[in-house]
Amino acid sequence: MSTKIFTTPQDCEAAFYDALEKSDLEAMMAVWAEDEDVLCIHPGGPRVSGHAAIREIWRQMFAGGARLAVYVGQVMATQAMMMAAHSVHEFISMKGEPRPAHPVVATNVYIRSGNGWRMIVHHASATPQKGAQPAESTPAQRPKTLH
Amino acid sequence: MSTKIFTTPQDCEAAFYDALEKSDLEAMMAVWAEDEDVLCIHPGGPRVSGHAAIREIWRQMFAGGARLAVYVGQVMATQAMMMAAHSVHEFISMKGEPRPAHPVVATNVYIRSGNGWRMIVHHASATPQKGAQPAESTPAQRPKTLH
Repeated sequence: MSTKIFTTPQDCEAAFYDALEKSDLEAMMAVWAEDEDVLCIHPGGPRVSGHAAIREIWRQMFAGGARLAVYVGQVMATQAMMMAAHSVHEFISMKGEPRPAHPVVATNVYIRSGNGWRMIVHHASATPQKGAQPAESTPAQRPKTLH
Repeated sequence: MSTKIFTTPQDCEAAFYDALEKSDLEAMMAVWAEDEDVLCIHPGGPRVSGHAAIREIWRQMFAGGARLAVYVGQVMATQAMMMAAHSVHEFISMKGEPRPAHPVVATNVYIRSGNGWRMIVHHASATPQKGAQPAESTPAQRPKTLH
């Protein structure tokens, strides 16, 4: 198991998206808490729980060796002493292709363990085509309900 | 604003699903933290943030006065001193109609405020038809990755 220490939830989140971009399974799994209550939900997917099962879905996802471009924005974060909840908008595309117009929204939950901050929940879901335009492309249409 | 006190995240979660079942807007909003960083994501929907915007989407949802039957199961919970993250499977139908075969998966995050535990995140998304059968109906097919 990895002994990488993340001193903040932000560091842990950055490592998560870096591992995703690089399709790096070992780096991805170093982000997760070594805990059976870890949970991962990909857009449209079922709830997958436990370290081994989560490793397997990332292994399958990374098997093609795709090089992704991952842009993460509109982060909202609430942090307590031992746990933090982040919400982000993810724009994920194949490297070299245009950034998608509509984000995936992800809830990421982190806990502070003996080995620093680790992810315990990644819950991602697609947003609708209408009403979820990224702010930078359509400022006039940006819904008031989005930060 | 409500002064209802929830002494545990579980109490707060029970009140959330009770308010949903009854289409009770005031009871629903009493569950949420009085905080601008509250977030609500309905299945297939965009991220809605802030107390007023969240109130508005529940108001619209409850406007028809539907009587729902809400069954919540397969709860997984991680709790710290000031924050808790729950994952549940929701089976929601119109009252009197059969329970849906496939759950919605929801991540619910709670914080401990001066007024007891309150919800800060509700993130719900549909699960696929295949591989997300409720355990009670198809035990032999239950994926190993689901609790």
